[in-house]
Amino acid sequence: MSRFFDKISPLDRRSSPLEDADDASRPGALQHHSPRAASYSASDASVSLGQLFRPVGHAHNGHHVVVQLGKVASDGKGTAEEGGDRAISGSLPFVLAFSNLTYSVRRSRKGCSLFWRSDAGEEQGRKVLLNAISGEAREGEILAVLGASGSGKSTLIDALANRIVRESLEGCITLNGEKLEGRLLKVISAYVMQDDLLYPMLTVEETLMFSAEFRLPRYLSAAKKMSRVQALIDQLGLRAAAGTIIGDEIHRGVSGGERRRVSIGIDIIHDPILLFLDEPTSGLDSTSAYMVVKVLQRIAHSGSVVITSVHQPSYRILCLLDRLLIISRGSTVYAGPPTGLHPFFSDFGQPIPDNESPTEFVLDLIRELEATPEGAKSLVEFNHARQAVPVVSAGGGEKTFVSLEDAIGASISRGKLVSGAEGTATTAAAVPKHANPFWMETLVLTKRSLANTRRMPELFVMRLGLVLVTGFIFATIFWRLDDTPKGVQERLGFFAIAMSTMFYTCADALPIFIQERNIFMRETAYNAYRRSSYVLSHSLVGFPPLVLLSIAFALTTFFAVGLAGGLQGFVFFVLMVLASFWTGSGFVTFLSGVVPHVMLGYTVVVAILAYFLLFSGFFINRDRIHDYWIWFHYLSLVKYPYEAVMQNEFGRAGRCFSRGVQIFDNTPVEGLTEAAKERALAAISSALGMNMTSTTCMTTGADVLRQQSITQLGKWGCLWVTVAWGFFFRGLFYVTLLLGSKNKRR
Amino acid sequence: MSRFFDKISPLDRRSSPLEDADDASRPGALQHHSPRAASYSASDASVSLGQLFRPVGHAHNGHHVVVQLGKVASDGKGTAEEGGDRAISGSLPFVLAFSNLTYSVRRSRKGCSLFWRSDAGEEQGRKVLLNAISGEAREGEILAVLGASGSGKSTLIDALANRIVRESLEGCITLNGEKLEGRLLKVISAYVMQDDLLYPMLTVEETLMFSAEFRLPRYLSAAKKMSRVQALIDQLGLRAAAGTIIGDEIHRGVSGGERRRVSIGIDIIHDPILLFLDEPTSGLDSTSAYMVVKVLQRIAHSGSVVITSVHQPSYRILCLLDRLLIISRGSTVYAGPPTGLHPFFSDFGQPIPDNESPTEFVLDLIRELEATPEGAKSLVEFNHARQAVPVVSAGGGEKTFVSLEDAIGASISRGKLVSGAEGTATTAAAVPKHANPFWMETLVLTKRSLANTRRMPELFVMRLGLVLVTGFIFATIFWRLDDTPKGVQERLGFFAIAMSTMFYTCADALPIFIQERNIFMRETAYNAYRRSSYVLSHSLVGFPPLVLLSIAFALTTFFAVGLAGGLQGFVFFVLMVLASFWTGSGFVTFLSGVVPHVMLGYTVVVAILAYFLLFSGFFINRDRIHDYWIWFHYLSLVKYPYEAVMQNEFGRAGRCFSRGVQIFDNTPVEGLTEAAKERALAAISSALGMNMTSTTCMTTGADVLRQQSITQLGKWGCLWVTVAWGFFFRGLFYVTLLLGSKNKRR
Repeated sequence: MSRFFDKISPLDRRSSPLEDADDASRPGALQHHSPRAASYSASDASVSLGQLFRPVGHAHNGHHVVVQLGKVASDGKGTAEEGGDRAISGSLPFVLAFSNLTYSVRRSRKGCSLFWRSDAGEEQGRKVLLNAISGEAREGEILAVLGASGSGKSTLIDALANRIVRESLEGCITLNGEKLEGRLLKVISAYVMQDDLLYPMLTVEETLMFSAEFRLPRYLSAAKKMSRVQALIDQLGLRAAAGTIIGDEIHRGVSGGERRRVSIGIDIIHDPILLFLDEPTSGLDSTSAYMVVKVLQRIAHSGSVVITSVHQPSYRILCLLDRLLIISRGSTVYAGPPTGLHPFFSDFGQPIPDNESPTEFVLDLIRELEATPEGAKSLVEFNHARQAVPVVSAGGGEKTFVSLEDAIGASISRGKLVSGAEGTATTAAAVPKHANPFWMETLVLTKRSLANTRRMPELFVMRLGLVLVTGFIFATIFWRLDDTPKGVQERLGFFAIAMSTMFYTCADALPIFIQERNIFMRETAYNAYRRSSYVLSHSLVGFPPLVLLSIAFALTTFFAVGLAGGLQGFVFFVLMVLASFWTGSGFVTFLSGVVPHVMLGYTVVVAILAYFLLFSGFFINRDRIHDYWIWFHYLSLVKYPYEAVMQNEFGRAGRCFSRGVQIFDNTPVEGLTEAAKERALAAISSALGMNMTSTTCMTTGADVLRQQSITQLGKWGCLWVTVAWGFFFRGLFYVTLLLGSKNKRR
Repeated sequence: MSRFFDKISPLDRRSSPLEDADDASRPGALQHHSPRAASYSASDASVSLGQLFRPVGHAHNGHHVVVQLGKVASDGKGTAEEGGDRAISGSLPFVLAFSNLTYSVRRSRKGCSLFWRSDAGEEQGRKVLLNAISGEAREGEILAVLGASGSGKSTLIDALANRIVRESLEGCITLNGEKLEGRLLKVISAYVMQDDLLYPMLTVEETLMFSAEFRLPRYLSAAKKMSRVQALIDQLGLRAAAGTIIGDEIHRGVSGGERRRVSIGIDIIHDPILLFLDEPTSGLDSTSAYMVVKVLQRIAHSGSVVITSVHQPSYRILCLLDRLLIISRGSTVYAGPPTGLHPFFSDFGQPIPDNESPTEFVLDLIRELEATPEGAKSLVEFNHARQAVPVVSAGGGEKTFVSLEDAIGASISRGKLVSGAEGTATTAAAVPKHANPFWMETLVLTKRSLANTRRMPELFVMRLGLVLVTGFIFATIFWRLDDTPKGVQERLGFFAIAMSTMFYTCADALPIFIQERNIFMRETAYNAYRRSSYVLSHSLVGFPPLVLLSIAFALTTFFAVGLAGGLQGFVFFVLMVLASFWTGSGFVTFLSGVVPHVMLGYTVVVAILAYFLLFSGFFINRDRIHDYWIWFHYLSLVKYPYEAVMQNEFGRAGRCFSRGVQIFDNTPVEGLTEAAKERALAAISSALGMNMTSTTCMTTGADVLRQQSITQLGKWGCLWVTVAWGFFFRGLFYVTLLLGSKNKRR
């Protein structure tokens, strides 16, 4: 295999000094990589990172000695036995140990009775997802969790990565013998989700650079961050794709395997000590999957503990894994190195055939055992009996590890853990929650969002097109309305439908918001930035396009319809349209935070907007709305823009919308001759003692407003209320983000 | 392996007589299944099918002799060499041969110049998807096409299944030496797509039974069809799941592997001679994938030619395949039995390591060769040199096959090809295009659709809820409108918004229509039924819920708002609401046939409906709409329901909407005292010589209608126009289906 491999991947070769040796040694039979791995981590990758960040740790010589000791020790490991001698030298590097992890959830409520809450019933109603699982993972190695779908792989990764609330999880997880505090874990670890949630229009390099901005401490210079990104690009084997955009369904971007590696890169930008991955190879073809696991191996060798679930590793991938933990329905079926599979299953009485892929055989065997009434119980018990002596006690307190503080300190001096650590700070309390101050986060988020949207002008062009087409239709259908009672009616219609249009146009942005929200959820899960800076930057980036849309809409309609007020009126009209867009997009943004599904969101938005229009005061005047609905009238977002533009139109003195006999328009006597109408007018005039001639103004703008019950807020008041609604919804959006992104299982 | 297999799958055992022997022989090394397979096809499956359909063929004894000969011959095959002796006995069963298949498409238009159309440029601008591929597939065997994604697997399957237009495809495809006519191929073959498009609420048994109704000839009794379905359920290993619904995201149903087998079952209900499958195992776990290929083996053994693409077969699956055709970028890289892989690649200089899965190794090798500048050229040429002698001439004319007509006749007498064949008809012309007459199809489709929707009441309940909530809001906000000028205005608003609601409610059904359309596309691709009967049954099934929705909406609003006309008026109101629903759903159905994507469809529907409302005559009267927009007014679907209910309300004599001094409502003098208004009224009265007192009716319903320019069509006219629109859109839907479901590549 090495022969054609040599010919083919020169790019990959260039990208990593590890590649040569590792590929050449691609084994025909199962073997352990750790010894070589550890030596590499000492010579190549770590050292380069160490050089890169030498000033980071302000490391004392003493610390360096610890590191050296650690390296020597790790050179010596590679077998399953590690005993007192290791403890004596006091230099064993990071070991994540877990014992008796048990986790269960209540079954679906179908069979659950309200009155029957005895403890026994409670116990029967629970489904055990993890059943007393123990094991350990070491620096420089990959621990792979295998099992069928539904076996509890992801649950175990979640448990180790502190993504299950502590109270629900029984058992014990320690790093170097010390219990892990949640906040510290968050800083020294990374969790890579199964989905690739990336901005589609950023290049690979930009994506990683933005991640560096968020997760690396601010005292690092831009040049240092750039070096880290470049090193990472090489480590991930992404050199050739560095300048390519991520891409989406419409825009051609990097391949699926490359995308996955970028996702991993984002999460390991700060070179975490613990790396958790949930099925990083799912959905990839075998070559891409191999490349991903190869990258994981490199990460492990650079001094990390890598724990990953894998659905069904191919033979080539199996050769890269150091330890396997195979589970079936939450119980351990096998724990040990890949080389142990053959003897284990031979002893169990199901030898793995020579020609067959070991994992395929084993997983099929487990699945078929699971289909029997007893399940894989026999195998679980067989494993338990075999493992009873060594593994369970591995995480116990008898061994003296390097203290966690010292180990982390040593790591920092080697360039690890550059995320939030300031100088030599190694305790949880000293680690700041966020790497950057608020204003910096906002700036970087804004920069990123701008870079992404600027390369996707189609979206803006589409919205602009929609606004222009709608504006054009309005302009032609309401072309130069006259100052008659009918013209007044039509103005009312125009204002009502035009102001609703702003809101409906915003609804089209729903899918984008929902997509963005998913990226946000991932990033805030590890405190990449504050929620508040996200909300702020989201608003900042969204604003300029709204200004353009407002001007476009106002330009197409204002003069064509013949609205009043000249330049001043036009400016107010633009501002009001802008305020509507602002509130509409705020409303839709808020909904995107609440509604999980695009179609449902769309239905809800359209329905709510229809009710807003109904209650705006156009269909039924405020003074005709029954008391029990009046609250909805005041909630209606359409009410305020509608009233504002109405006042902008009708609030000016000196205009007349019904003069002389036009008083009879829209009344039963409308059909009479001009002469008859004039006679009637004269008669009323004298009867009422008023002087009404055919040129007397009968209806002023103020009259129209009074008839429409637009008498409460002035036009500027309406504008400010609308703007305030926009802020209010963004505030609500912030609250939903606070509530919605806990990201932990109960 | 057989040990735990024996323990585990008793259900599966029961379901198939083939299982025992086949599983017991699960080989540790690669070996050919054909000999045993053929004997089984003679003894078990075929015979039972033959017994089942004995009357079908009205078979002469002579035919039976042919069959016997065929069986004897097939018992003798199983090696790669078949020579003249086979031809002499004249009994070789179906062989699908293809030679030099070449197919290319024009590259994307980016590099294409309008002025530079030399032939050479034309050639450079084409991408070769298939490059002179030859091979053959035989009855009783599985031919598997392997290759990386993008290698041309699906294209080859499409080419063989006649899913590429004949003119674009070079090369020759023959069945038993005769060219295949498209219509005949459609009857004797089946093509199984990658997607499972099934009605989620039907059980496995029902799904297959409906397929039997569509594809089996009508002279077969229901009992016979049922027997065929039962036999198929056993053959597919679906006995345990027979009564389970298919399921969807919300409703728990069968597993992914079972669903895939149901999809296959639907297409092989008529026991086709040729079965094509596009990646039937994709997305399945290895056990499910194995079960699916196992089923394919059973189908092959029952006397079919099975040709399938497989992404990356596991070792177990590889053992079930009889021939492989591995392609890389459209060229053959290997053709032969799985056992030939080891010597082939040894000779090529890349021996397959003992421990490794052969297909994994080979596909990785190919992918890595493809990454080099020369691509897999060396391998293609190596294969070409090796294969030069035997394969290419296999499809040539030297051999005498059983004539196609005789072979098909024999098949029919064994129970094969029961789809469209009437009695002994074996030529293409005698095969009717559809199995059933129009009325029968409509009946079955209606039955199926009813069964599916009846088990999914949530959807109807949701729509009903939406209608009731909206009705309730309307009822309370427009509570008991009075007969004043303001009440008239509010009635206008109510009618406009209520009639639009019907249309918006229909838009929510868009996703369902789009999902159904995909099922329809698949089924009409093989002429399961006429497009017309689908459109008819679609309308029939959709109608009853609309009646209920209409009554619900009318009941909540009609009396609460205080609309006129008593029972008669109510009945017309119900009818008009129903007509709106009918047209609205017709419109949305039509759009679902045009718009491929749900979100886009939703946006388009909402925008168009908004324009309909704008042009309905409510916002701007017909006589005020400019000439250049008047066509849109007449196109507006909302116009007709709006005018109809307006006339239903205002078209009655004897009601008065403005009496005496109410004439001054909504005019500038509205604010005067009652006494002053009465004086003014008296003055007008005398001036005009009319007798107007405070009780005189000033505005009748007819006046209102005249003011709103509702003067053209009567209310029944509007009703019929609306209903006609509904029919028109269903007609358009039919046309889109005719145009849209060609299903062939160019």
